[in-house]
Amino acid sequence: MPKIRIGLIGYGGIGRVHAAAYRAIPFHYGLPADSIQIAGVATSRAETAARAAKEIGCDFHSADYHELLARADIDAVDICTPNNSHHAIVAAAAAAGKHIYCEKPLAMNVVEAESMAQAVHSAGVKAQMTFNFRFFPAILRARQLVDAGFLGRVFSFRGRYHRSSYISSEKPMSWRLRRAITGGGALFDLGSHILDLLYCLLGDFAEVNATLDTLIKERPSAAGAAEKTPVDVDDIALLQARLADGALGTVEISRMGTGATNDLTFEIFGDRGAIRWALDDPAWLYAFDLRDADSPLGGERGFRKIEAVGRFAGGKAPDPSMTPDFMRVHAECQYQFIRSIWDDKPTSPSFDDGLHIQRIMDAAERSSKRGAWVRLNDD
Amino acid sequence: MPKIRIGLIGYGGIGRVHAAAYRAIPFHYGLPADSIQIAGVATSRAETAARAAKEIGCDFHSADYHELLARADIDAVDICTPNNSHHAIVAAAAAAGKHIYCEKPLAMNVVEAESMAQAVHSAGVKAQMTFNFRFFPAILRARQLVDAGFLGRVFSFRGRYHRSSYISSEKPMSWRLRRAITGGGALFDLGSHILDLLYCLLGDFAEVNATLDTLIKERPSAAGAAEKTPVDVDDIALLQARLADGALGTVEISRMGTGATNDLTFEIFGDRGAIRWALDDPAWLYAFDLRDADSPLGGERGFRKIEAVGRFAGGKAPDPSMTPDFMRVHAECQYQFIRSIWDDKPTSPSFDDGLHIQRIMDAAERSSKRGAWVRLNDD
Amino acid sequence: MPKIRIGLIGYGGIGRVHAAAYRAIPFHYGLPADSIQIAGVATSRAETAARAAKEIGCDFHSADYHELLARADIDAVDICTPNNSHHAIVAAAAAAGKHIYCEKPLAMNVVEAESMAQAVHSAGVKAQMTFNFRFFPAILRARQLVDAGFLGRVFSFRGRYHRSSYISSEKPMSWRLRRAITGGGALFDLGSHILDLLYCLLGDFAEVNATLDTLIKERPSAAGAAEKTPVDVDDIALLQARLADGALGTVEISRMGTGATNDLTFEIFGDRGAIRWALDDPAWLYAFDLRDADSPLGGERGFRKIEAVGRFAGGKAPDPSMTPDFMRVHAECQYQFIRSIWDDKPTSPSFDDGLHIQRIMDAAERSSKRGAWVRLNDD
Amino acid sequence: MPKIRIGLIGYGGIGRVHAAAYRAIPFHYGLPADSIQIAGVATSRAETAARAAKEIGCDFHSADYHELLARADIDAVDICTPNNSHHAIVAAAAAAGKHIYCEKPLAMNVVEAESMAQAVHSAGVKAQMTFNFRFFPAILRARQLVDAGFLGRVFSFRGRYHRSSYISSEKPMSWRLRRAITGGGALFDLGSHILDLLYCLLGDFAEVNATLDTLIKERPSAAGAAEKTPVDVDDIALLQARLADGALGTVEISRMGTGATNDLTFEIFGDRGAIRWALDDPAWLYAFDLRDADSPLGGERGFRKIEAVGRFAGGKAPDPSMTPDFMRVHAECQYQFIRSIWDDKPTSPSFDDGLHIQRIMDAAERSSKRGAWVRLNDD
Repeated sequence: MPKIRIGLIGYGGIGRVHAAAYRAIPFHYGLPADSIQIAGVATSRAETAARAAKEIGCDFHSADYHELLARADIDAVDICTPNNSHHAIVAAAAAAGKHIYCEKPLAMNVVEAESMAQAVHSAGVKAQMTFNFRFFPAILRARQLVDAGFLGRVFSFRGRYHRSSYISSEKPMSWRLRRAITGGGALFDLGSHILDLLYCLLGDFAEVNATLDTLIKERPSAAGAAEKTPVDVDDIALLQARLADGALGTVEISRMGTGATNDLTFEIFGDRGAIRWALDDPAWLYAFDLRDADSPLGGERGFRKIEAVGRFAGGKAPDPSMTPDFMRVHAECQYQFIRSIWDDKPTSPSFDDGLHIQRIMDAAERSSKRGAWVRLNDD
Repeated sequence: MPKIRIGLIGYGGIGRVHAAAYRAIPFHYGLPADSIQIAGVATSRAETAARAAKEIGCDFHSADYHELLARADIDAVDICTPNNSHHAIVAAAAAAGKHIYCEKPLAMNVVEAESMAQAVHSAGVKAQMTFNFRFFPAILRARQLVDAGFLGRVFSFRGRYHRSSYISSEKPMSWRLRRAITGGGALFDLGSHILDLLYCLLGDFAEVNATLDTLIKERPSAAGAAEKTPVDVDDIALLQARLADGALGTVEISRMGTGATNDLTFEIFGDRGAIRWALDDPAWLYAFDLRDADSPLGGERGFRKIEAVGRFAGGKAPDPSMTPDFMRVHAECQYQFIRSIWDDKPTSPSFDDGLHIQRIMDAAERSSKRGAWVRLNDD
Repeated sequence: MPKIRIGLIGYGGIGRVHAAAYRAIPFHYGLPADSIQIAGVATSRAETAARAAKEIGCDFHSADYHELLARADIDAVDICTPNNSHHAIVAAAAAAGKHIYCEKPLAMNVVEAESMAQAVHSAGVKAQMTFNFRFFPAILRARQLVDAGFLGRVFSFRGRYHRSSYISSEKPMSWRLRRAITGGGALFDLGSHILDLLYCLLGDFAEVNATLDTLIKERPSAAGAAEKTPVDVDDIALLQARLADGALGTVEISRMGTGATNDLTFEIFGDRGAIRWALDDPAWLYAFDLRDADSPLGGERGFRKIEAVGRFAGGKAPDPSMTPDFMRVHAECQYQFIRSIWDDKPTSPSFDDGLHIQRIMDAAERSSKRGAWVRLNDD
Repeated sequence: MPKIRIGLIGYGGIGRVHAAAYRAIPFHYGLPADSIQIAGVATSRAETAARAAKEIGCDFHSADYHELLARADIDAVDICTPNNSHHAIVAAAAAAGKHIYCEKPLAMNVVEAESMAQAVHSAGVKAQMTFNFRFFPAILRARQLVDAGFLGRVFSFRGRYHRSSYISSEKPMSWRLRRAITGGGALFDLGSHILDLLYCLLGDFAEVNATLDTLIKERPSAAGAAEKTPVDVDDIALLQARLADGALGTVEISRMGTGATNDLTFEIFGDRGAIRWALDDPAWLYAFDLRDADSPLGGERGFRKIEAVGRFAGGKAPDPSMTPDFMRVHAECQYQFIRSIWDDKPTSPSFDDGLHIQRIMDAAERSSKRGAWVRLNDD
């Protein structure tokens, strides 16, 4: 297998996570240390780019990502920049024939996302979303159960992603609260994760009935400032949703979930079984099997706390019986991207998956404005 | 204090619970054994009435509740019959000058409920709802916290009541699935409980955006029958709701919650604190206090698992450090009713409270039909 | 079936619980209200006896239990007095031909306990211990699993009963801290409960290696007093134990378990399965089944949270899906005693069971003094 | 700061973990990528050494660790070999003037451990134990609380490390079951971890009363073999222990803990507070504060679930709100070792700490043989 040489675009918190995860891949999958290289990094300023290159240990760095794309020794780019730059970078990278790994959400809106999905198809490059939570062992196991028919007919579901990062009205404005940069608020930032988990387990969404709100409507323009700036993105989004197969559920997304650190959870209810999982108890999948009633002892049904530790993480686990972490699941997501290049197979989660999530979020915004149910593919 | 002589109307499962709870009251509140007497029972058939009287240990029994109402030695009636009889019994009991204790939901619809609330006001009798869950020690403690301003501004909330009693499509029709008898499905049966808990903690609801569905649309007409009968009540109800004070939340009600036994829970998120509780872990209230940040040790915030055992149940607890049960909270609810008679003070929860819950459920049904937000007091 | 007329001896907190539980039995088991009567009560003072009789609703009361024993209209006595009176009361009651229901622990020491077990055998009366925790539905279900071979060979076990009632050094002396009244400290009061649960699930204990200690060695003679009185009973007891079948385990008993309300729990580890339970989460039994590995989906083993709600409590449950409480399990324990009279069958838990627990506690005390393993039946 | 060049000795599962953790350090602590280098690896066979070097990405590899020690470009060695080789490697490494990072347990016995602690003192090299669990954020936070007097006087404690790896009697012999290679069984392998956590939080152990047993006394000589080999190490070890400050506790160590994956937990009970933690729920520290009683709302004490996520892990956390994993805490432990070199400060946990753990384990073995309490420093 040829070496894969990655160009990182963006090196904030999530860029650092991606970089560290690439470094960990050889140990998790038994590969030569040099099979994956971070060959260059581009950020918005020369100074941060140079600092990033030193931490990463790569020679090339630039304040212009086009320079990175122009290099022949870059096979793939990894996009960790704010949402409002994704579209342009993807267009340029696809045009340059680079494979693309892109942080969520894919785009600022459905129009951009459609264009990006089209661009990578046309260019014939591999393109994958960072939906890293899909790669927790518990989710991998949940997908196996769902695929094997464990749930039967799905009646309903519930998803949530709560954080409490914005409950203080003294917390000042930031780029995460500006629609022009992010495209959306809690719905985009947190919602994209939980919506993707439900989608990867249960399939297409058909329609949504959503209420978005901004509970704190203006914030200090800067830390401690008396001046206030209006917030133009949601900090809470409540969805009712119907899936293509008829299941009816609810999704709660909030940056105002007092007490929550990373309260991402879902539950799915079917006529043969039920499953649930929570990100803050990540090593366990809870599953209820109606067929347990057939036990010779009679009626010992109950939610089982199923082990979903390191050995189920994919690849070799050097820590097979331990709780896997955030970095570990990024490594698995990134490894799947690299495998799709090596094996010339479709990526998963693909940009088409990213586009579907974008359509759900778009429908939620339209529904909230109308105060009514909205179908995903309506105008 | 004069003896209170109760006439029970209805003696199914819940009638038996009420009867047992009256018997337990003296031991919980240090009263003479004869201070509360069940003086008669009426059911729909002479045979069941006689059997009930024997189990209860009372002399009078009848297949006609009017006979019970006609007796001078009955001070109050306790209504444990199906919903479609509540209106007529309340009207007759109020006319007879009896105090009234009534199982939830109050009525078949808002029109009936308004008429009943009016009837007891006019008659000047004490009238109380059986919203028994309010009397778990954890809820009593939660109310104290809320009243003391523990939550601050309430941002949002979530409520749920899930059971799994109807997930099998082989489960036949029953009176609980007939609108003509119950007035509604999961929303009425389960929803009235969780809606009341949110209401008693957070105050009036203003508007709702609800989706009701019947996931299993027809069922065997009888156990094992090939013939099918259509189900005309909901088995799932999803609500978004906005309270009078602006808080925005979600409520999930389902009889199709695979794996659930009595999965009733709520969470409330405020700018000073958060609380949550679950019926299947009833002895503990979980509370998060943002002011814990002021701790000298710095940053030891976290949900506290606060004891809400017997000694917080009201009255004397003969079992002060133990988990209270369903019977215990019925006893407290019934005792409050009796105290309102002895002390001539307003009942709580009152029929007006029952009427508010009826209005929420009515608005949910109207919202679901319209596919849009509906205000409680709109026509 | 003849009416059973009970004479209560002692009416402190636990006497009130027993009285209330007798009153609840008809509703749980579908019996006529008058099938079980509390026909009299004896306490140590005329005044408290009169007050008890009023609360209970019985005519006879006395400050001398011999008067109660002398009455022909008493079939059975229920002993709720301090431990140092059990032996004399049992001897007198057996001599009077009364059936006997006795609170734990049975006696002050093994010599007394042997004499009491002998006395009831000779008199041919039914005699049962109040080991109420045995009657939680979770324990009833656990016994079914154990009897069906669910655990296989038992490797090891752990038991605990922690309370925090004595952690303050300001808490003054009380009768519970005087060996002359209780016979022992935490080991007797709390230990008897957890030892009995392990014994009823796993069978005879063979030998123990115990350490008892008194962590707070003297206390104020009365609330707020400067004078101190030495404490002559243990407040912590740690046991290693080997059962007759070879299983090796550990038991922790403490009144100094900071943060504990009623932290009673056990875990049992076998080569086919494992179970665990906790009193402060009483409605659930957790069970791990190694045979789950045979599942077609492969490897979905995990602890199952098995429902052990009201409907598994024995008898009719008017609250079949709810968490049972302390009063409910007393009712079941008392009902079993009454059934043993009606059906003329052996009691369970019997005085012989109470004697075995006494032997374990005695061995623990001897072991602690010697600092070495001690067999139960050694001198 | 000079580059630190590490020589790895041993590259089994744990060697791979250490290697990956060194690679992650720059990203967690903001260091240049080349500040820590794995400069060589030695294993027992040329073939595995070559394969390891390729995965790690280092040039030097050897089947003789003396060759590694002879190199000038190695500053420190990291020992990941079986226990019976630790003593010789440490002696040689100290003689070669290399800093030493050594997996637990330190040695085969106290005599070896004393000699090793002496050797590194004499050589003046930095020497640190791999007690990685100390570096979970929850443990770091627990130490802060303990140091600040949160617990007050410690009454008692409980520790456990259960795994279920050996419950099948069909599981064949392996090097982990041979005393000649490991020095001990569950006590050494699992016990060293939990004993160290208690020691680092509570200080020196004074005496122990232990029972070690081998529940499965012989095993197939190889997978599927009919021939059996006796097992000469413990698979369960139960300890009672008294600390130097008088606290009395219990420790359960077992490879026969049916259902356990990595059930490591501890609880500590003091007169001002209590704490507990569990490895399979690693992101949370539970703490009970008796001073919460002073709350204006009265009596809202309860165990608090305190956040102990990435941002408390030490260094920069690229994943500040997520559950840290096994690799992350190894990285922190290794980073502390490197800092002790850079800053010329004492290591912690040191070889003296490793020696104390060795003394506890030795006392436990002596106690078990004698069936009595044994002091750590007795012969």
